Amino acid sequence: MADIKVGIVGGTGYTGVELLRILAAHPQAEVQAITSRSEMGVRVDEMYPNLRGFYDLAFTEPDVDVLKACDIVFFATPHGVAMSMAEDLTSAGVKVIDLAADFRITDLDVWAKWYGFEHTCPQIMQQVAYGMPELFRDEIKQANVIANPGCYPTSILLALKPLIDAQAIELTGIIADGKSGVSGAGKGANVAMLAAEMSESFKAYGVAGHRHQPEMKDKLDILTGQDVDLTFVPHLVPMIRGMESTIYATLAKDLSQQQLQEIFEKAYVDEYFVDVMPSGSLPETRMAKGSNMCRLSVFRPQGGRLVVITSVIDNLVKGAAGQAIQNMNILFDLPEQTGLTQVALLP
Amino acid sequence: MADIKVGIVGGTGYTGVELLRILAAHPQAEVQAITSRSEMGVRVDEMYPNLRGFYDLAFTEPDVDVLKACDIVFFATPHGVAMSMAEDLTSAGVKVIDLAADFRITDLDVWAKWYGFEHTCPQIMQQVAYGMPELFRDEIKQANVIANPGCYPTSILLALKPLIDAQAIELTGIIADGKSGVSGAGKGANVAMLAAEMSESFKAYGVAGHRHQPEMKDKLDILTGQDVDLTFVPHLVPMIRGMESTIYATLAKDLSQQQLQEIFEKAYVDEYFVDVMPSGSLPETRMAKGSNMCRLSVFRPQGGRLVVITSVIDNLVKGAAGQAIQNMNILFDLPEQTGLTQVALLP
Amino acid sequence: MADIKVGIVGGTGYTGVELLRILAAHPQAEVQAITSRSEMGVRVDEMYPNLRGFYDLAFTEPDVDVLKACDIVFFATPHGVAMSMAEDLTSAGVKVIDLAADFRITDLDVWAKWYGFEHTCPQIMQQVAYGMPELFRDEIKQANVIANPGCYPTSILLALKPLIDAQAIELTGIIADGKSGVSGAGKGANVAMLAAEMSESFKAYGVAGHRHQPEMKDKLDILTGQDVDLTFVPHLVPMIRGMESTIYATLAKDLSQQQLQEIFEKAYVDEYFVDVMPSGSLPETRMAKGSNMCRLSVFRPQGGRLVVITSVIDNLVKGAAGQAIQNMNILFDLPEQTGLTQVALLP
Amino acid sequence: MADIKVGIVGGTGYTGVELLRILAAHPQAEVQAITSRSEMGVRVDEMYPNLRGFYDLAFTEPDVDVLKACDIVFFATPHGVAMSMAEDLTSAGVKVIDLAADFRITDLDVWAKWYGFEHTCPQIMQQVAYGMPELFRDEIKQANVIANPGCYPTSILLALKPLIDAQAIELTGIIADGKSGVSGAGKGANVAMLAAEMSESFKAYGVAGHRHQPEMKDKLDILTGQDVDLTFVPHLVPMIRGMESTIYATLAKDLSQQQLQEIFEKAYVDEYFVDVMPSGSLPETRMAKGSNMCRLSVFRPQGGRLVVITSVIDNLVKGAAGQAIQNMNILFDLPEQTGLTQVALLP
Repeated sequence: MADIKVGIVGGTGYTGVELLRILAAHPQAEVQAITSRSEMGVRVDEMYPNLRGFYDLAFTEPDVDVLKACDIVFFATPHGVAMSMAEDLTSAGVKVIDLAADFRITDLDVWAKWYGFEHTCPQIMQQVAYGMPELFRDEIKQANVIANPGCYPTSILLALKPLIDAQAIELTGIIADGKSGVSGAGKGANVAMLAAEMSESFKAYGVAGHRHQPEMKDKLDILTGQDVDLTFVPHLVPMIRGMESTIYATLAKDLSQQQLQEIFEKAYVDEYFVDVMPSGSLPETRMAKGSNMCRLSVFRPQGGRLVVITSVIDNLVKGAAGQAIQNMNILFDLPEQTGLTQVALLP
Repeated sequence: MADIKVGIVGGTGYTGVELLRILAAHPQAEVQAITSRSEMGVRVDEMYPNLRGFYDLAFTEPDVDVLKACDIVFFATPHGVAMSMAEDLTSAGVKVIDLAADFRITDLDVWAKWYGFEHTCPQIMQQVAYGMPELFRDEIKQANVIANPGCYPTSILLALKPLIDAQAIELTGIIADGKSGVSGAGKGANVAMLAAEMSESFKAYGVAGHRHQPEMKDKLDILTGQDVDLTFVPHLVPMIRGMESTIYATLAKDLSQQQLQEIFEKAYVDEYFVDVMPSGSLPETRMAKGSNMCRLSVFRPQGGRLVVITSVIDNLVKGAAGQAIQNMNILFDLPEQTGLTQVALLP
Repeated sequence: MADIKVGIVGGTGYTGVELLRILAAHPQAEVQAITSRSEMGVRVDEMYPNLRGFYDLAFTEPDVDVLKACDIVFFATPHGVAMSMAEDLTSAGVKVIDLAADFRITDLDVWAKWYGFEHTCPQIMQQVAYGMPELFRDEIKQANVIANPGCYPTSILLALKPLIDAQAIELTGIIADGKSGVSGAGKGANVAMLAAEMSESFKAYGVAGHRHQPEMKDKLDILTGQDVDLTFVPHLVPMIRGMESTIYATLAKDLSQQQLQEIFEKAYVDEYFVDVMPSGSLPETRMAKGSNMCRLSVFRPQGGRLVVITSVIDNLVKGAAGQAIQNMNILFDLPEQTGLTQVALLP
Repeated sequence: MADIKVGIVGGTGYTGVELLRILAAHPQAEVQAITSRSEMGVRVDEMYPNLRGFYDLAFTEPDVDVLKACDIVFFATPHGVAMSMAEDLTSAGVKVIDLAADFRITDLDVWAKWYGFEHTCPQIMQQVAYGMPELFRDEIKQANVIANPGCYPTSILLALKPLIDAQAIELTGIIADGKSGVSGAGKGANVAMLAAEMSESFKAYGVAGHRHQPEMKDKLDILTGQDVDLTFVPHLVPMIRGMESTIYATLAKDLSQQQLQEIFEKAYVDEYFVDVMPSGSLPETRMAKGSNMCRLSVFRPQGGRLVVITSVIDNLVKGAAGQAIQNMNILFDLPEQTGLTQVALLP
């Protein structure tokens, strides 16, 4: 099979370099173009010296004709860019994967409320699938546009899915306490994200409201057909990569620790990228560093009313670029783990 | 007034060096003796070179007669040591502050269940106060033995107190998601706490059950006169110092964000060491680093049923040695902040 | 004695908050004004919440009349600001301490070459002393303007001074390999200093030339009366605070390890802020964290021709704000350690 | 070609898990056995959960017969183990790669002095090659036993090689200032390496003498045929992985910056794993994280007498397991980069 011709729009940020890092080892994809208006002419390996020897590419001006010659275009751009170009590309038969939030929320009024401007391409939403294969694989296969999920939603929805399918939990009072490494904040020049500000400190943020909450609620409502009540509080961890979510839900059934473990193991027995930890053990974010794995554990502490799930991913891989490539593999009928079998870097 | 003569039993761990660091600047206390069987003869500033120039002391063998000549003895020892010596000391008129858990839980059967052996000094419990001045100041004044609180309970009980006093929350379904820096695990040689293991990673631990849960429940039951239902999940953060707790409770009254803020500000208006952040802002652990402050914020996200409180302390100061010295100041009728006015180290 | 009235120009950066942190505990100084054009009106404790409860001050517009009412003015500003206001202040009897580089290099042509513009106040250089008390205490006492030294020069000149005084080393081929925590780069919004960029990595920088090299050479030439040959390479360490320098020089005399140790111990026996470690032990930067100490060790590895000195400071304290306050104490005839006796924070 | 059958002795430490991580992606090698007396019976992926899904192996008792059935055996053991088994294996036609120091130093008296006991297998030294392919590729091809180099020697010898070959530097007064991440200290339970001890601090160690100095001198003497004078001071950096060395040497010829750059570029033009950075730029350790690359820069600061080279590697990859696999590839006539083309993980 001929290589998949890949274009990347944006790509100067961390999801961009991760796409390039992973695609460098993908046996059936080749990056044809990477665009950046601000870095036009700069070599990719000058901006990201870890890529020295792997790419002979420079950032170019975004050019729709060049992108139309690709089979797939990834948008690693600020919110609002993908929606301005997606239709042009899909109409030319190009698949689109947006790593930003343009297509993540079904209800565009909700979207507009949280992202601060009107959606400019509502008609394309019918071609969109939410790119979490473990939840929406069939939709992804049919879609032209993939809304690549947010990092928190990835870690949290994968944790809730087995319990929802088993109708094991109440749909009110679900709490997700999320913790992210600092790369999640991106590569913008931001005093608050300086090493001297972020190291050796921990904080909650966005307690009053965070955009990933409506994204998760949207999917939970779809999965359950009900109005799910989810509270989400994100936190910032002084580490580069990694995301852990601890999720609390009220049991709707009297399930033992062992039954809960079985529910999870059965739910994910066929999923390459979701690993249910042995009963009693807990995942650490480093167990996913640099890899596309999500690792989960489930507990019923002290035999109480609550079930507690902990979930770890690498926010830049399963939470962004890795999942995007997993989606690409599905779109092009490749085995889902193609190019995504890296072992996590530990220590 | 003559200086308070201080003895320290144990003191080779992190709470020990913190007692010494803070007492070095205390205008009315002087360390007379510091004991350690394992480090007998080693100079304190050889083990902790940050103390070079401040102490001309070596660790000595634990000797009850030497300790009886002190006005107060701090136990910075493993669980079980303080209970073996406390009665001897209090009967000689010496005040005792235990930084371990020997006297933290009122119900000694519960204590034995969580700490794995029978309590050997039940009769002394009548002389004990739980050393969290903002909750139990009057009891502390009268006590001979202070159970210095655990670090998580400090951060969490200070966060819940105003809401409980205001009868603002349900007493079921309270969730405390705690995060601690690695110094909380102590100075033992432990592979899991190596820098190469702990850095750049984040994890939950003790999900099935953690000793600080019964300690908190014990105090919440006392404060409310009811059987409080609290779920607690601790996490480990790749930083040395600092503890953040995010606490979720269901509102029992329809209180606005502003009303909640006022409840907190009024509750702590006279407390030197509890700082309610301006409405809408969130504390970071570094805002307490090296200081005895607890900083709090309160939110009602999206006007929902839940109140969310975030609370930060330095686990080794307000969570251990600093609070112990605050208790000492109360016992000896000094202004509570004596020797405890350090500004947090930021950045 | 009445309190010293202190003004701070600039002060939104890390040296500014350190001045405020240390002065909060200084028994004989009071901050009257702190200026910042960009942050005018912002409360100091809003920008630096660790100061909540310690200051009731906001940043104000720089106003020479307000500053003239002070006894001393610290400049925690970019290079070039102090030289524009210093003469105005000294002529009004106000002492000036510049924490930037305006007055650090005697030869103003060399200064202009490294700082990129002409010095605008050459006439004031006669009132200037280089503010490293252990080298130039007598000059400081007489001066109106203090050039507060760079952080690298502080750690390196303190390490070389005893050997130079003892004529123990050759004055060619001196090598200083310096390592700094990231706070040394300041609080500017700079992609290269993001936590996601700087954590978990180490690098040399400025190998082709760094401004602290001519500053050190200037002082070494003055101390020796000769043309000293010094190579300096700085490095960046993924930690917030701390600076270590390893200095290599060729022995001019056959001095034993023990003789070298004695030279250092004698040289600094009366210096409160310089601590010579016991022979055979090595300082770590954390042994100075948050304190004004410099800790040194000296070695003659394998009995060879080289002497190796390692030197640690907190770059923001002895390397900046702490040394500035030490200079203030000298200028106002206070004991040098007044307000500067904090124990380093360890762990 | 049939897969290479690999045995690993030891393997519970960081070099062991790195061998497993890299071999998991090696297309022509398969791990047959991994032994550990202390962890016998423990699954490899229980000890290293990043390997879950990649290996169905448990640690077994070291058994020479099992190892003899392999084509190659890696020793990831303490010093002294490989020398006790190597002859038995090589006589059975098995290749041996020792990641410890048993075979690194030619002069066994020097070896005994630094490692504290007599070498027990002097006769095997004739079959040994020092496993740094860029320096000793021909010897490696012929050898039965590979002494895999120390991490510091790897970073430093690769930096010096081009200058030595060009006779560009004096062979006296060479200084190597090395800095290592904490994983270099291994996975032993060691208080000094706890996260609470090592984070946020930097220090020199081993100034009086470090075992990698005689290892480097041995190779430099061989390469030059002279008695080379090298001073080496190692330092510990608060990061997990990565090693930087800054090397200072006196120029023997008047070579310009550009000529020096050319010497390096020519020297390494055909080496896959050595990357000479563009003139004027400097490598950072993260540019090699998780990869087998060594990145170098060369400078002549201020046109002076000294040349300064900076060199970065991942201490666990090119400094240990990666180089070992590079050696294996050479021994089995595979392209040298087989299984070693991972892109460094950045950020």
